[in-house]
Amino acid sequence: MTDDRVLATYLIESPHALEHAAEVIAGEQSSGTFVSVPGETQELKERFGARIESLEPLGTSDRPALPGSKGPKAHEGAPVYRRGRVAISFPLHNFGPSLPELMSTVAGNLYEIQELSGVRLVDLELPQAFADRYPGPGFGIDGTRRLAGVTGRPIVGTIIKPSIGLAIDALRPLVRDLATAGLDFIKDDELNADPPYAPLAERVPAVMAEIERVADATGRKAMYAFNITGDIDHMLRAHDMVRDAGGTCVMVNVNCVGLAAVAHLRRHCELPIHGHRAYFGAMARDPMLGIGFTAFQKMYRLAGVDHLHVGGFDSKFWETNDEVAQSIRDCLTPMFGDYRVMPAISSAQWAGSAVDIWGTTRTHDVIHLAGGGIIAHPGGTAAGVLSMRQGWEAAIAGVPLAEYARTRPELEAAIAKFGKRAG
Amino acid sequence: MTDDRVLATYLIESPHALEHAAEVIAGEQSSGTFVSVPGETQELKERFGARIESLEPLGTSDRPALPGSKGPKAHEGAPVYRRGRVAISFPLHNFGPSLPELMSTVAGNLYEIQELSGVRLVDLELPQAFADRYPGPGFGIDGTRRLAGVTGRPIVGTIIKPSIGLAIDALRPLVRDLATAGLDFIKDDELNADPPYAPLAERVPAVMAEIERVADATGRKAMYAFNITGDIDHMLRAHDMVRDAGGTCVMVNVNCVGLAAVAHLRRHCELPIHGHRAYFGAMARDPMLGIGFTAFQKMYRLAGVDHLHVGGFDSKFWETNDEVAQSIRDCLTPMFGDYRVMPAISSAQWAGSAVDIWGTTRTHDVIHLAGGGIIAHPGGTAAGVLSMRQGWEAAIAGVPLAEYARTRPELEAAIAKFGKRAG
Repeated sequence: MTDDRVLATYLIESPHALEHAAEVIAGEQSSGTFVSVPGETQELKERFGARIESLEPLGTSDRPALPGSKGPKAHEGAPVYRRGRVAISFPLHNFGPSLPELMSTVAGNLYEIQELSGVRLVDLELPQAFADRYPGPGFGIDGTRRLAGVTGRPIVGTIIKPSIGLAIDALRPLVRDLATAGLDFIKDDELNADPPYAPLAERVPAVMAEIERVADATGRKAMYAFNITGDIDHMLRAHDMVRDAGGTCVMVNVNCVGLAAVAHLRRHCELPIHGHRAYFGAMARDPMLGIGFTAFQKMYRLAGVDHLHVGGFDSKFWETNDEVAQSIRDCLTPMFGDYRVMPAISSAQWAGSAVDIWGTTRTHDVIHLAGGGIIAHPGGTAAGVLSMRQGWEAAIAGVPLAEYARTRPELEAAIAKFGKRAG
Repeated sequence: MTDDRVLATYLIESPHALEHAAEVIAGEQSSGTFVSVPGETQELKERFGARIESLEPLGTSDRPALPGSKGPKAHEGAPVYRRGRVAISFPLHNFGPSLPELMSTVAGNLYEIQELSGVRLVDLELPQAFADRYPGPGFGIDGTRRLAGVTGRPIVGTIIKPSIGLAIDALRPLVRDLATAGLDFIKDDELNADPPYAPLAERVPAVMAEIERVADATGRKAMYAFNITGDIDHMLRAHDMVRDAGGTCVMVNVNCVGLAAVAHLRRHCELPIHGHRAYFGAMARDPMLGIGFTAFQKMYRLAGVDHLHVGGFDSKFWETNDEVAQSIRDCLTPMFGDYRVMPAISSAQWAGSAVDIWGTTRTHDVIHLAGGGIIAHPGGTAAGVLSMRQGWEAAIAGVPLAEYARTRPELEAAIAKFGKRAG
């Protein structure tokens, strides 16, 4: 891609010819109204117009993916909905290197268009000017590993459960136990940010006291991701509070605060930002609407998250394992040098999940989160943590899980309790 | 609704019994992991659990609205997908009156759930605590009318076109002409915020000089909505720039900056916020996914917009006229006293659109935006503006458009040029 255009790739569906549908997107998102207006010269269109760079037909459907489309007027017989993959480039000087204005252009009013019965932003290529404006991940993979003290294997983590309702005096011993059990990473639930029953201002010192106490005893300081999701002033204050208490990570539900808020936090932030993607299903679950993960993660990597949730293999959520594997690869694909982020894998994870993750992605640069899969382990939390590491050792060594478990009772017990889920 | 619970209403679809599907949402969004964990006591569930308040079946479908669902294991024969409307209440003390945390709870991970083949947030009822935290619209309908100097009829507006590429020296005479022609309201396009070819820092003084010059001559000062969409610091600086130049409105693409950014701007803002909803189609066009307008607008009214785009009757966009009418009513429905906002109606509008708007909503508390419908009027822009007012006069008086046009050449010319669109 050139340095002066943004390339956006879409899956589209239309009752019109695909070329026409693509032209409508290009026109709507660069200039045009329902009748030609004075000033809309040919020269202006050439200098500021979006351009169709490629168009690949992908077959047809006899029913529209989305309601509200209208076919050509001269149409006779049953309508046919044509699908395709179209790449459209937009001149950068139409909006400049601004994330909110990028989104307005590549993911704005085009979802409204009647000529389309399906439209999904699936990829983005951005010119260097965006990297000059946005510093991207402040810590990324290396910085996170350094702060967590973990090399050569995944960061093994868990989520504080119950997600809601845990008072501070119940949280303290739980954090102590989790840190003592050897967890590298502990995080608040996405639902638990600053609730009245356990305000963040009380949670931060209580949690950090436990983390530091265990660190003094063991020499290993767990990374705790405090959920600072909230209004802008709250996030900045909460970040400072976590930093001042010796914390090493803050967590944000990125879609719930929005793109500008994440970019703003990043400029202020001195800790890794753990990006939870709650609401992502609303953006992506209809395969012919919204924003796919590949495009989504590029925007939030640029905004400055260091970790990003990607779902999990054999999870309780809707995505296929192939989609999860692709999301992991996406986070680790270079962009602007090292704007890579650590994928956070979660939901119904246990020791055996490592086999599929490693088998499909060949990476251990992940945060592997297990809830019940660790703390509901029959041997207790420490055994749960060990079983996770053993699962990864087996996967990376290419040894079948059951075989590796023969001399490792923690893995064996994990297989016995959670193994049916792997089937 | 009580003062200590949030009520969220969903359309859902599931291959399971509707009760079960609703329970999964309630559990996922208040507590729970894939196996029971220590500490998840019955008392905790009662105090912090979400509660199903009502459940109305809405028929079945033989195919899933969304991919990724899984039916009950014991299932035999072809699956049936049950649809329903379910109201679930969440204890406010689970998260407190925070908009980003509200969204995490009522519109977060639930879109991922396998037990659902469709899930859409359609309405919200919020306790008073949210109004205590968020001041809502700073100007609303009355404040906007006061600043625009318009009473007893809609605010008639237009959008600067071409939306992209207009240099400052071409913009100046255009703004002058529009203001002279009697427009109450002029706005930047959602694609035009702070582009390198016409930076906001140059656009604001140039535009305001023209607006003030016309105001000096005519006694009427048009409201100009400057698009300040961008990063947080940019928005705050841009707002100050507009205010200091005597401007009376700022515009933001609310979904492209996000909920926290809008709420933050509102706390700083001394001008009405014109909320553009670019990207809304991605949130709402699949009827069984995302967030419907009724719920959407409540969140952004609370965040503090004063105007909100609602699409338009017979527009070039996907929504039906019934949906647009409902969106207009939504914006004008009281919430926390007077947290009402002015709906901005746009896309393919002209004088005759007034008949349907008034006929279905019986309100003129709207910003009625026409682009080509005003500036491409055969008699010129001033005649275009007049025709819009005449269309509204006819609608409110209940006089057929053609009859009213007999003595009003501007309306007559509008019907001749744009009237076929009304059919």
